[in-house]
Amino acid sequence: MLIVMKADATPDEIEDVRQRLEALGHATREIPVDSRITISVLGDSGRIDPDQFRTMPGVAETIPIYKPFRLAGRDFQSENTVVNVDGERIGGRELAIIAGPCSVENRDQLLRTAEAVKSAGAKFLRGGAYKPRTSPYAFQGLREEGLQLLREAREATGLKIVTEVKDVATLKLVANTADMIQIGARNMSNFALLEAVGDMPKPVLLKRGISATIEELLMSAEYILSRGNKNVVLCERGIRTFEPYTRNTLDLNAIPVIKSLSHLPIIVDPSHGIGMWNGVSAMALAGIAAGADGLLIEVHHNPSVALSDGQQSLKPGRFNELMEKIRRLAPIVQRTILEREKSETQVMIER
Amino acid sequence: MLIVMKADATPDEIEDVRQRLEALGHATREIPVDSRITISVLGDSGRIDPDQFRTMPGVAETIPIYKPFRLAGRDFQSENTVVNVDGERIGGRELAIIAGPCSVENRDQLLRTAEAVKSAGAKFLRGGAYKPRTSPYAFQGLREEGLQLLREAREATGLKIVTEVKDVATLKLVANTADMIQIGARNMSNFALLEAVGDMPKPVLLKRGISATIEELLMSAEYILSRGNKNVVLCERGIRTFEPYTRNTLDLNAIPVIKSLSHLPIIVDPSHGIGMWNGVSAMALAGIAAGADGLLIEVHHNPSVALSDGQQSLKPGRFNELMEKIRRLAPIVQRTILEREKSETQVMIER
Amino acid sequence: MLIVMKADATPDEIEDVRQRLEALGHATREIPVDSRITISVLGDSGRIDPDQFRTMPGVAETIPIYKPFRLAGRDFQSENTVVNVDGERIGGRELAIIAGPCSVENRDQLLRTAEAVKSAGAKFLRGGAYKPRTSPYAFQGLREEGLQLLREAREATGLKIVTEVKDVATLKLVANTADMIQIGARNMSNFALLEAVGDMPKPVLLKRGISATIEELLMSAEYILSRGNKNVVLCERGIRTFEPYTRNTLDLNAIPVIKSLSHLPIIVDPSHGIGMWNGVSAMALAGIAAGADGLLIEVHHNPSVALSDGQQSLKPGRFNELMEKIRRLAPIVQRTILEREKSETQVMIER
Amino acid sequence: MLIVMKADATPDEIEDVRQRLEALGHATREIPVDSRITISVLGDSGRIDPDQFRTMPGVAETIPIYKPFRLAGRDFQSENTVVNVDGERIGGRELAIIAGPCSVENRDQLLRTAEAVKSAGAKFLRGGAYKPRTSPYAFQGLREEGLQLLREAREATGLKIVTEVKDVATLKLVANTADMIQIGARNMSNFALLEAVGDMPKPVLLKRGISATIEELLMSAEYILSRGNKNVVLCERGIRTFEPYTRNTLDLNAIPVIKSLSHLPIIVDPSHGIGMWNGVSAMALAGIAAGADGLLIEVHHNPSVALSDGQQSLKPGRFNELMEKIRRLAPIVQRTILEREKSETQVMIER
Repeated sequence: MLIVMKADATPDEIEDVRQRLEALGHATREIPVDSRITISVLGDSGRIDPDQFRTMPGVAETIPIYKPFRLAGRDFQSENTVVNVDGERIGGRELAIIAGPCSVENRDQLLRTAEAVKSAGAKFLRGGAYKPRTSPYAFQGLREEGLQLLREAREATGLKIVTEVKDVATLKLVANTADMIQIGARNMSNFALLEAVGDMPKPVLLKRGISATIEELLMSAEYILSRGNKNVVLCERGIRTFEPYTRNTLDLNAIPVIKSLSHLPIIVDPSHGIGMWNGVSAMALAGIAAGADGLLIEVHHNPSVALSDGQQSLKPGRFNELMEKIRRLAPIVQRTILEREKSETQVMIER
Repeated sequence: MLIVMKADATPDEIEDVRQRLEALGHATREIPVDSRITISVLGDSGRIDPDQFRTMPGVAETIPIYKPFRLAGRDFQSENTVVNVDGERIGGRELAIIAGPCSVENRDQLLRTAEAVKSAGAKFLRGGAYKPRTSPYAFQGLREEGLQLLREAREATGLKIVTEVKDVATLKLVANTADMIQIGARNMSNFALLEAVGDMPKPVLLKRGISATIEELLMSAEYILSRGNKNVVLCERGIRTFEPYTRNTLDLNAIPVIKSLSHLPIIVDPSHGIGMWNGVSAMALAGIAAGADGLLIEVHHNPSVALSDGQQSLKPGRFNELMEKIRRLAPIVQRTILEREKSETQVMIER
Repeated sequence: MLIVMKADATPDEIEDVRQRLEALGHATREIPVDSRITISVLGDSGRIDPDQFRTMPGVAETIPIYKPFRLAGRDFQSENTVVNVDGERIGGRELAIIAGPCSVENRDQLLRTAEAVKSAGAKFLRGGAYKPRTSPYAFQGLREEGLQLLREAREATGLKIVTEVKDVATLKLVANTADMIQIGARNMSNFALLEAVGDMPKPVLLKRGISATIEELLMSAEYILSRGNKNVVLCERGIRTFEPYTRNTLDLNAIPVIKSLSHLPIIVDPSHGIGMWNGVSAMALAGIAAGADGLLIEVHHNPSVALSDGQQSLKPGRFNELMEKIRRLAPIVQRTILEREKSETQVMIER
Repeated sequence: MLIVMKADATPDEIEDVRQRLEALGHATREIPVDSRITISVLGDSGRIDPDQFRTMPGVAETIPIYKPFRLAGRDFQSENTVVNVDGERIGGRELAIIAGPCSVENRDQLLRTAEAVKSAGAKFLRGGAYKPRTSPYAFQGLREEGLQLLREAREATGLKIVTEVKDVATLKLVANTADMIQIGARNMSNFALLEAVGDMPKPVLLKRGISATIEELLMSAEYILSRGNKNVVLCERGIRTFEPYTRNTLDLNAIPVIKSLSHLPIIVDPSHGIGMWNGVSAMALAGIAAGADGLLIEVHHNPSVALSDGQQSLKPGRFNELMEKIRRLAPIVQRTILEREKSETQVMIER
């Protein structure tokens, strides 16, 4: 860390800062920069809180050099993390495709969609049983019944289950069904929930908050990692900007940036990212081209009757076409994707 | 609600929309606008989810006319809500001033600051015992010990206690001490927590999320109100914008807008809103001038050693000067504020 | 257009609105929506300014149905525009690759870079002679000398020249050299400049302003189109958000959205879009995958001595690798790109 | 300036940076910070472009210590600038109130409004003759006829004229009429126009761009100051955020921040800042409470027929009430405002 003193800082003020740093166990050096004094902290200053120095008399600015995310950062671990979700891997050479409906609505909807996404090549089924909704009057999910249907879908298809946990109270219930627990964007800074999933071994899909900086996303991952759970996959799902035309603004810049800062896998959710079905395939391809480790995509066998997010869900036929394109795109970005199974379920795909 | 059909919508598509609305119990009327057909929903369409119609074939747009916040809105209740916090009122003619340290740090810090803010005219003491922090390595609060100190401060001064609840697990503990429970910005969309405080009679101070729209803030209030707790006070505390110079951008536009949309009281937190102590007094006065019902201000007897938010805390002397100005400003905006008590504690105020 | 009256609007207020619309030549119809009166405007209401009605007594809201961009929109022209830049086409099946240095700095720099980008397959050379800079003390470009060097580079390589115009005063000078005139992000709402290029037949590359909505970008194009110049190519180059890590946030959502709203070609500038060279290739591929008609990329033979934007410029070797990937990506999105010429210049490419 | 090297920077890379700085005439010193080498630039590094060093091999970060605005900053001039507009002063103890219609529409409208605002206590008349509009089809102003009417209004009332210049081509014409030239938000980065007004002695009102940072606003002022024109008044008029309810978000944080960074006067435009007339008075008072040197307010004698911005214009009666409140507020923030003249014109104020 560097502490830049004001041009008119007194020797006493400089000495106070120096002594406080030394009281915390840090050697210091005073150095001139332009015409001011700057105090450099030698050794590892990563755990010093810069805010504690910023308000001391005579201090102009504090400049951290180390990144505050330690376990999530490349300094801590240079090789990529590969997360194992009950045998399927996320973060390696193979792209991870997670697809399914926004909400679990009923058995027919879930099983038809599950068969369709499996047939198209997905390895993971998404589907919400507990839905955080902006309005208390909106559909909040089938809850335990939804979890039961997800277990049925896993039995029927072998797909791994990715489903959202809404709060600490229902975490155990959700974790009993999920192969991977999703933390939604609104819960990215719900630290009690982060700590609770950090205390489990279960893989976690952590979505970026709607106006979270990249550093804040990595700090939320740090909460989970620091409790011992190393199985964290990040997810970019669109940020909030001034643009009224789309629901969110998918921030694909975040992919190369996170790849350079962190060893954790990162996937893209183009469905929320653009929020309109006729832009989803374009943004899914763009996400893979930008270097993402996979996709989280909303697929519904009949979007016009969906209870949530119908406007951004793909029909199985379009999802299948998208998967064909991803299959061709993958090798260009040094990735692979499993060949589509030639199963009987394929015939049910309705375009 | 209005449903605008595409220019090339077929008669069958128009009929499908009409029938679906009627199946939900709504009379409709087809009307031409420009050269398209628009379907108008007669009667109360407030509980129809527009997303369910937006993706139907032939539909161009859905336009809600009603606001989605019903209990929080002026349509539901036209006169202003006044929240009673153990005898002190927020939302009436008298301005509510809540002041104190960001975090409870120790007995001396809390009691000295409490005496000072009381002496300057505050009626409420703020102070965090459980602190949500971006970094898992940062000071997380004194927890139960902090609550104990808050109770001591209340006994010593008679100030009402406003303190933050971080999660559902510690809610009962916090509610036992707090006269008013604060929901922080990061928890504005923690719906499980909103529902839990909605099930209590305790007054709630609900802070706006860092990138929450005004409508989303009112919908979070709706979660609490819809569970039966009508004692909700809103708080504008700065939003996230592109400006790097200040920690947040205090959105004072929100004050007149919320006053026109909702009957709930709204106060301003200028400390987080600008994030630098030398701008806090200016923004506090601006908040009152804009029509706020009160202020939430960080005061610390020695900000340069504060464990959190020292950079944005006022010293007691400056807080006292600010209160003098608010006293003169209040009548211009048809408000009052209690006369400062001429107590012995006043001598300890250090400028 | 629809005009929604307030719930308590009087018959006289409704009549005033109706009469004003009829005075403007529009037939109207009064229709109930929920429990309010809404006035529908029949026929083409595209030229009515909604703001003129929004403040009339009794009016709650005005809702435009038509898009305000007429010439730029798909309603006006459904098939894609293909812009012809002195024989090279932008907006058709073939991707348009525009590459070169941020600023023209000297003959050696420009010619070396021009040969390199040509050899890698670009058809257009970019390079600024007049540079709008945030600081009056920063390098402002070589001006006329820069234009002279661009003409030399065209003679030497046959590449088409794309260069920025900074103001109306130097427009003729720039237009004499440029094959395509670039309007930079800061000038997107410089309406005098838009009108001036609209009065010329020269193709225009119009960059999106740093916080312009998609609709505002299309309205700026409308300024040019409405003066008679139909040769407009749009460019997404990153918007301003709260994220401090990257210079801008490349908004690739804009590609499918603009493709659905407008017939104009749209290209992507990944160099400004992410602002750091090691993310440029990822974002370039993502842009093409999202459906862009081409790329605008900064290439410099020695970025560490560049006078501007060195941090986001690719070296020729990396640009060449990127072009190889684009060549493989193009057919997946139904595009083509010219085969790389096997010329002697290729040997000078330094990786 | 500080240049932080990467942890694995080689001695050669460090030496290259050092030599390049010395070639520019700067002494340097190498210092350890945490476990890295940082190069400190001694003496005045204000004219070094950090971007030129950021991309050199081995460099991790460049950290400027000096602010890039030199003439606009407090380092250059510590006492406040007071701008003299033909005898009326902006930036001193007296608040400057500039009021009038958005656009000059006709003689009756302008003269009636001018008399009303004068009677209420304004010293300056605003009114646009040349209007930059997002749509090429919207009303663009009365142009020369508008300037003629503004001169008539000055003769009739003695108010100083503030009117916007749209481009360099019409600058002389506008300057011949205006006592103070307004540069609108869309032209804040129109550097050719900034340079042109910088070459005149005429006072300039420079509005902040809709997504300009505070530093960028001061750099635009720097363009004008560096050409010799020291008569610059800044104006905060609302920034663009994610909030859809208001047209803009008035950023009052900018007032104390700019006051601490710069000696230039700064006024507030609450009309554009909130964009709805029933919030304008609240935001006007808030602006003055935050420390602004004055206000720019839209007043129209009949907003419901205004050709532009009617929705955010005050009627003369409300403007008069606002002025009464400002008169009472001024002394609380150590300001004065002229007593209202008891003139005959007062009787025409229609509430």
